This record gives sequence, C-alpha cells and structure tokens, in this order.
Amino acid sequence: MTTLDPNHLDLTGDVVDLTRTICDIPSVSGDEKRLADAVESALRAVAHLDVLRDGDAVVARTALGRSTRVVLAGHLDTVPIADNLPVVTDGDLLRGRGTVDMKAGVAVMLQLAAVLESPRHDVTYVFYDHEEVAARLNGLGRLVRNHPEWLAGDFAILGEPSDGTVEGGCQGTMRVKITVPGVAAHAARSWRGSNAIHSAGGVLDVLRAYVPRQPVVDGLRYHEGLNAVKIEGGIAGNVIPDLCTVFVNYRFAPDRDVAAAEEHLRSVFAGFELEVTDAAPGARPGLDQPAAKEFVEMVGRPPAPKLGWTDVSRFASLGIPAVNFGPGDPLLAHTDDEHVPVPEIRQALHVLHSWLS
Amino acid sequence: MTTLDPNHLDLTGDVVDLTRTICDIPSVSGDEKRLADAVESALRAVAHLDVLRDGDAVVARTALGRSTRVVLAGHLDTVPIADNLPVVTDGDLLRGRGTVDMKAGVAVMLQLAAVLESPRHDVTYVFYDHEEVAARLNGLGRLVRNHPEWLAGDFAILGEPSDGTVEGGCQGTMRVKITVPGVAAHAARSWRGSNAIHSAGGVLDVLRAYVPRQPVVDGLRYHEGLNAVKIEGGIAGNVIPDLCTVFVNYRFAPDRDVAAAEEHLRSVFAGFELEVTDAAPGARPGLDQPAAKEFVEMVGRPPAPKLGWTDVSRFASLGIPAVNFGPGDPLLAHTDDEHVPVPEIRQALHVLHSWLS
Repeated sequence: MTTLDPNHLDLTGDVVDLTRTICDIPSVSGDEKRLADAVESALRAVAHLDVLRDGDAVVARTALGRSTRVVLAGHLDTVPIADNLPVVTDGDLLRGRGTVDMKAGVAVMLQLAAVLESPRHDVTYVFYDHEEVAARLNGLGRLVRNHPEWLAGDFAILGEPSDGTVEGGCQGTMRVKITVPGVAAHAARSWRGSNAIHSAGGVLDVLRAYVPRQPVVDGLRYHEGLNAVKIEGGIAGNVIPDLCTVFVNYRFAPDRDVAAAEEHLRSVFAGFELEVTDAAPGARPGLDQPAAKEFVEMVGRPPAPKLGWTDVSRFASLGIPAVNFGPGDPLLAHTDDEHVPVPEIRQALHVLHSWLS
Repeated sequence: MTTLDPNHLDLTGDVVDLTRTICDIPSVSGDEKRLADAVESALRAVAHLDVLRDGDAVVARTALGRSTRVVLAGHLDTVPIADNLPVVTDGDLLRGRGTVDMKAGVAVMLQLAAVLESPRHDVTYVFYDHEEVAARLNGLGRLVRNHPEWLAGDFAILGEPSDGTVEGGCQGTMRVKITVPGVAAHAARSWRGSNAIHSAGGVLDVLRAYVPRQPVVDGLRYHEGLNAVKIEGGIAGNVIPDLCTVFVNYRFAPDRDVAAAEEHLRSVFAGFELEVTDAAPGARPGLDQPAAKEFVEMVGRPPAPKLGWTDVSRFASLGIPAVNFGPGDPLLAHTDDEHVPVPEIRQALHVLHSWLS
C-alpha cells in the first residue's frame, strides 16, 4: 500500500525506513502528540494487540495467556533539534536527531509489535513521552503512578542505545549536603574564630580515603562512587568563615536500597551534619530470570552492568527486573552529530525477534 | 568671643565641646568639604602653623627647626549616619556618629595644633578624607602620592581609637587564589575523572597543619594567621568537578615584607598553582625611636601590637614608623551605638600635650 499521509507508519516494511519516518516526525519533549497519535493509530490497526493510551504514552499488549510477560519500552521524545532533521543517510549510517536516542530502538519495537502475532512470551510494548526532561514529567513515571497494571510483567527491556550489548539494571544515586559549622572572626584575629573551611577538610579526608565497593549483583560487577560534586564556603576576604557546605553524590550498586545507602553515608560521615537532598533507587538486572537468561544467550555477548541511572529503575520500583538493550552508541546521545549504524538496527531487530519467536 | 557661625571651630576652648562641634558637622566619606573648610580656616588663624591643602585633606606644620619631627594624623570622614547625630551627652559619654571613629582624636589634635606654640619636636598635623571607603580613594594615600614631602617625619601617631593604649605598627595582609585542577567525568563513572574538590583537600591539609608565627618585632609580639576565606568548586550534581579554587588570606607580622610573604606562601603551598590577588604591607611599630620611647613612657601603659591593617602602613611606606593612639573603644567603631568616654578624650589630650611640651 502506498500512502501520502506523512503520519502513516508502515510497521511491517523495512525497519530502517520506519526509523527514518519516525525520526522525521519531530517530537521534542512536550511536543510528542503527533508522533504518539501516529504510533497509536498504527498499533490499533494490528489485530493481535490491545492498545491503551495515557497522555502521549501508548501501551500495546498481546493477550495470549503465556506464563511469562515481557515488557519492551522506549521513549518517543528527543532533546531539541540542532538543525539535524530530516534524517540523512550517510553510507551505513542514519544521521539526525533521535536516530540513536532512541527512535531506532522504538522502530525495532514497533516492527516487533506488528509482526510477532504469536510470541513465545506475552509482550507489552510501551512508548512514552517526556523522558529527556525533569523526572516529575516522565511519561513512564506517570504510567507507574496512574496505571501500574498496564506495566505488569516478569522482565523488561528498555531500548536505550547500548551498542547492542545487554546493560543490566542500574545503579542508584543519592545526593547529600554536609554542613560544617565554624565561628566567624576577623581574619586579623583568626584564632578568635574557628574556620569552617578548614574543618571541611575532615569531609574531604573521608572522601579521599574512601574505597568504593565493586559488588557482583545477579552476575554483574557494579562500581560505586562517592564524590564531592560541589563545595562552597566563605563570607568575605577578611572574615574567618562560619560555614562550609560540601555536596556529595553517592552512586550505589543495586544490592543496596535508598535506606541502606543513607545509613551507609551516615556511618561514613559520622560526626558531620548530613541532609539527604535527593535519591533514586537502583535496579537489579534480574539476569537470573529464565526469560532474561534466554535473552542474554540470544544476544551472544557478555552482559555489562549499567552504571548510570536510567528508567529501568522505574520498572524495578514495580518489582520488575529490567535491562537496557538497543542499537547505537550511547555516547552519541544528545550530540549534534547523533547517528546510528544501520546494521545495528537490523541486528537488534534480529535478536529480539529470534528471542520472542 | 562668641560666634553664631556653626562652622567656626574654637580650637582653644574645651576639647569636649570641640569634639561635639566637629561631630555635628556631618562628614560622611565623600562629603568632607564643609568640615575640611572649617578645619583649614581655624588652622590658618593659628600664627605658628603653615597650612597646606590637597582636596579635602588639610596639613598644618610647625617650623621650629627641631631635630625631630612627629606627625599626628586623623581622618575627617565617618561611615554613614544612622540617625545618631547631633551628638548627645549621656553622663560621661558623648554618643553619636564619629565620636569614637575618630573625631575625638581629631579634636585632640586640633587643640594641640592651636595651643602648642613651641613643642619639643616639630609637629605636622594631618587631617584627611576618604578613610572609610575604597583604599584607592584614601586621602592619606593621595598625600603619599602627591606630596610625600608634606608628610616627612621621624615618627607618626594615627589618632584611631585604641582605648588609650599605644598600638604599634600593623600586620600586613596578602590574599592568594589557589587553583586545583581535576578531570571532569560523569559521576556514574567517577574513576574516569579526577575530583578537583578531593584534591583541594591537600590545600586544607596544609592550612590545618600550619602553625602561625608569633614573632616579636621592635618589642611587640605579633600573631600571624593563615586562613581559607573562600572555597568554591563544582559543576553539576552528576559531574566530577575539574576545578576547585581556595582563596587564602595571610596576615603577616611587620618583620616580613610583601615579597617575603609571597615567597613564604609559595613555599608553604609548593606544588599548588598560586596567584597573589592583592597585598598590603605591614608597618613596624618603630618603638625603638627615641621620640616613640618617650611617648610610650608618657602613656604609662604597656604598648600592644596592632593586628589589623591600618593607615599606619601608609607612613611605613614612606619609611616613617607609626603607632595608633586615640580615645575610645575601637570595637564601637561603625556601630549605631558609637560613643566615647569624655575622660578618655581629656586623658589623650593630656598625654600628648605633656609629651610634646
């Protein structure tokens, strides 16, 4: 069938053409409606799927009564366009906004949704909005709050670029503010005061001596980190400062929850005044799940731990282990030179199709 | 003689009345002209003085051919008025803007100028503007640049409040900026970077271990200080910082000049990148000078070192040792409750008069 409607998505044609088509429908965060409408319309035309919608998030599910359900999820939005649309084909590359982060992954999932009439596991496909902006706007987070039952499953794959490797789980993150007091005095009579900046040296002592854990969780070796990310203190050039503040970021492996992370920091910084300013839990990779094991075998490359924080943590909050798997180099995300190799799109489609067939 | 001219200064009447009169002529920095005119006019009426003027600074000198010349100096300006003029007499106190900082001292010097027709040492009286504002505006500094010969002398007394004690010389001050580099990285992979804030712990180590000198200079024990007065570093909550800056203030005794102070800091912070951002030399108390020795004996109380930086350093830059001596408590300077005890005004006049007669 030929169509002139630029919003029509041909889900069963070439996956590379589909990638180009959905990249060329601009969908900067907050402006996903046109693409979400196109996705919803195309999926509603697929007989074996139940389609649901919340805002600009679209969920499509098989209902085959399989004993296992897997979730494939990807975000529809991109960071702002940098004069890099429409997509340009450059040899084996597709260049342009959204190609790597993450419409190639979305195209792979859309094609699977259309062609896998009878997958081995029931599948829930999730396409959502507002991933590239403030966490409170995140479309997947909204689904978790509004319709957790739509996301139910045994294992989830987020289609973020991972160079075709399975990146399992994610580390948690916690930020704390450590307040070190002092006593102000004129700098000409400094011994009458107590220098808060000097006392903050004690916090830096702890940080410099700290040896981060590298625990193995569900078969993957994570790597924690404890770092000052900001320090500030000082009143004037002639005053002994009465306050110094050190902001510390703790990245913790997914064998530790937020409460355990806080307890650990309070122990490490015993004697200092510490306030947790924000925290997000990590996510276990769940590679001990049978469906996950099969998937890793199908990929045929050793899985790696995900060290940064990603939306897989939102699945973890529902008790669903999750991994990242998608075409392209994650380091190209958000760059003006964003691009994805065509063979990686086809390879991702092949791996997921084989695993689910 | 009775006069109704509010700008007329009666230099030979009661010194407390004179203090009240010059306090009630407002002279916030930049607005000294009316008081400077009154001072110039009154001094020009004194036969034994040569009077000079530069801007709102007035200099009056005896020319008796004595072998020693002493300089008595005081600033005419005050910090802004806080609804504390005109002066109120409250028992033994004069309350109001300028009473302690430093028109009581100025009144004492004005009276001495008028009544000491034939002092033991030649005397140069200096009344200047813009002491309470930016150093580049300072009237004494301007005289040093424009007319250093007007200030020539063997020993100088600055009439700043010192509770009637001789406070000798002053400590120097130097500020340096220490720049600690790092390598930026995402906080999720902190080991790929190098944390500049952690490395700045090395600077704080030096500061915490530092033992300040307390050298005796010309018989007075000074007390140095080396302190961080500001620290800043950090890019974002998820980035390993590539820069941390520590601003350090060194207060150094007057046996060390600015070059020696810098050399000392470069040695103390060897291995760190250090930039001198500003410096002002200290001043030796010069209490080994015969005129100074006589003066200290006349005061009859043990002299103390001046730890803060004051305009005595400007005399030191001309090779003239200088001390601070004046009525009132220096801690009341700039406060809304500024006041001076009347007996201290009379005592300061008595001491200086006796020493110079």
